[in-house]
Amino acid sequence: MAGQDHPVSPLALSMPDLSPVPGVRLGTAQAGIRYTTREDVTMMVFPQGTMVAGLFTKNRCPGAPVDWCRDALKGGRARALVVTAGNSNVFTGKAGRDTCAQTAAAMAELVGCKPREVFLASTGVIGERLPTEKLIAALPPLFGALDEAAWEGAARAIMTTDTFPKAAIRTARIGDATVTVAGIAKGSGMIAPDMATMLCFLATDAKVPAAVLQGILKRGTDRSFNCVTVDSDTSTSDTVLLFATGAARHPRVPVEGGAMLRDFTRAVHEVLMDLALMVARDGEGAQKLIQIDVTGAVTARSAHRIAMSIANSPLVKTAIAGEDANWGRIVMAVGKAGEPADRDRLSVAVGGTWMAREGGVIPGYDETPVVAHMRGREVEITVDIGLGRGKARVWTCDLTHGYIDINGSYRS
Amino acid sequence: MAGQDHPVSPLALSMPDLSPVPGVRLGTAQAGIRYTTREDVTMMVFPQGTMVAGLFTKNRCPGAPVDWCRDALKGGRARALVVTAGNSNVFTGKAGRDTCAQTAAAMAELVGCKPREVFLASTGVIGERLPTEKLIAALPPLFGALDEAAWEGAARAIMTTDTFPKAAIRTARIGDATVTVAGIAKGSGMIAPDMATMLCFLATDAKVPAAVLQGILKRGTDRSFNCVTVDSDTSTSDTVLLFATGAARHPRVPVEGGAMLRDFTRAVHEVLMDLALMVARDGEGAQKLIQIDVTGAVTARSAHRIAMSIANSPLVKTAIAGEDANWGRIVMAVGKAGEPADRDRLSVAVGGTWMAREGGVIPGYDETPVVAHMRGREVEITVDIGLGRGKARVWTCDLTHGYIDINGSYRS
Repeated sequence: MAGQDHPVSPLALSMPDLSPVPGVRLGTAQAGIRYTTREDVTMMVFPQGTMVAGLFTKNRCPGAPVDWCRDALKGGRARALVVTAGNSNVFTGKAGRDTCAQTAAAMAELVGCKPREVFLASTGVIGERLPTEKLIAALPPLFGALDEAAWEGAARAIMTTDTFPKAAIRTARIGDATVTVAGIAKGSGMIAPDMATMLCFLATDAKVPAAVLQGILKRGTDRSFNCVTVDSDTSTSDTVLLFATGAARHPRVPVEGGAMLRDFTRAVHEVLMDLALMVARDGEGAQKLIQIDVTGAVTARSAHRIAMSIANSPLVKTAIAGEDANWGRIVMAVGKAGEPADRDRLSVAVGGTWMAREGGVIPGYDETPVVAHMRGREVEITVDIGLGRGKARVWTCDLTHGYIDINGSYRS
Repeated sequence: MAGQDHPVSPLALSMPDLSPVPGVRLGTAQAGIRYTTREDVTMMVFPQGTMVAGLFTKNRCPGAPVDWCRDALKGGRARALVVTAGNSNVFTGKAGRDTCAQTAAAMAELVGCKPREVFLASTGVIGERLPTEKLIAALPPLFGALDEAAWEGAARAIMTTDTFPKAAIRTARIGDATVTVAGIAKGSGMIAPDMATMLCFLATDAKVPAAVLQGILKRGTDRSFNCVTVDSDTSTSDTVLLFATGAARHPRVPVEGGAMLRDFTRAVHEVLMDLALMVARDGEGAQKLIQIDVTGAVTARSAHRIAMSIANSPLVKTAIAGEDANWGRIVMAVGKAGEPADRDRLSVAVGGTWMAREGGVIPGYDETPVVAHMRGREVEITVDIGLGRGKARVWTCDLTHGYIDINGSYRS
């Protein structure tokens, strides 16, 4: 089973110091769902009045926990979150739905809330029945040991093939008060979030109406997780949830949100962006982080599609793994995107050095600075389409032997 | 440079005996365009009256030879074909267009035809100027040494990262006459033909109007090359050309084609299918040939998109490389295709054994026959969507360390 046996990504970042989010208590436990030597259940409990926003995978074959959360989200209120790692509870039929209902019922009884105020997420192997009894048996002792300081353990307990835990934190001002936004995420393979992400959980003590919270989360996710791809494979479990406890003492936020939330929105978006980039940095087998900027497309949407076509091209990604600035493959990937593009108006730069312009290599092009840039851990590609003002920025990682190693034997 | 240094695909097929196509003379030469130890120029010359049909890449950044052929095809007539390997003459600006014009002019003078009756194709590195002088210097001696029997050499001289030459042949009856259809193809990486293929050249002695020929080629290509993917990367050079010399003595074919061409159409389609499957068998790094059948989709187009989503999924392809019948990843790939699908009506089989049905694993599912099937060289996946009558069949290969090896160092 992957996760334990692969070396830590050379692109790993160290954990930030996660100060508590007032009102949020959390903890982890070892339920033995699939992993036998590590913690695999994460619990968060929120105070009364906590609002929740969420986004989920667009994959047409979503897991049972995604269906559960979509339904629960209609209420806009949350009191608990239970996450399991090792088994995704996807394509598990009625048994999977029963697991969700039973887990939520057990958790609701512990907390003293409605089952629809319990949110669920699972990640791991698809198509195997999740041992519900083991999970439910682990809940009461875990509930008795929750702690405001357990963020780092939670970031570790939600991992599968991840090689490092992913967390981010910001503070923001709302009126005269300071609020905290903390988040954790997991994700390494099956990463091409489609209006969502792998698993990502944020909590804040801000008091923000659920509809406003949802808008902030949506815009932030569009610019962060939805601009990251590891392997073009959109997961069946992508989930991002933002819990706002309302414990902070700031002036009342109006139902339409507005200027008062500008700094809070920045903080949420920065946490999302930090976490999304960590997912790209921990892409299965990743040796290099790749940032792709597309400018001059006919629209921003077109720019995004072209950027993702480059980011998902196995030939571009293997070339970068080989430290080869093969801009011909970048041109190919622009052309295959199906978006408006004119070969003779296209320009390509790597590491800030323009290599190709107006349908051909730049006369006297000197590869030296590009070669040096390609040897680094972070590679920057810029493509100007030369047709309009649409732009986009996305991130991916290179495609290496490590990806094949990890994914040829994931279930064994 | 790839091509010479990689072992022959374990899925390789041996060359068929390519009897001559009456009227078609061909040959190869070593021009030193990029490769220095092998033949890299292929020439075919056709008799007066030869009709031609063609299909080309939909990539928006096509190579100069693709532009040239698209224009030349409007005439519907062909007298010669010149193919170079090692340099694709793509993204080479005005220099690339000049190379095409000069090559066609030189060839036209040798043959005594119009430049627009000369067809051109190139394959290899993108973005480097093709040394026109070397190519043009190689043409006259090659023209003097053409031969009706040189098909095998031609199949070899058009290769780049291919590990085995690809050729196919059929005969067909038109009226009381027997005609021959022979074809060669190359392709191994950057294979996701979009209404076209990598390089594929067919010749026949049938006498068929160009418009009818084009229709036959289009339908055959849609079912063969357009159903094959190696790495989802659509090339900038995809070209398939069918030359019909008209040397055979069969009754006149009406302008609308019709029943008289039924057997000929079968022969053309079989040659295209043979060659397309050889391209999948020689996918870069391929160890297994994968056939994917999708049934029960809402339309044939929807079935094709779902099948290609499975075929292009790195997670499905690496699992198969690892001989892991990870049907959860197949479910994921169905769901991410964006086509109508209902998790709870989906069924998945591998090697004829149904593993998953109605949203979960089949009760009592025994993995034994599936494990045995996965160990073989040819893997069959069947997915029934359970919504309609649309079906499709596509082919791909597994994703292995060999692909990374080949593409991390292609230009070095």
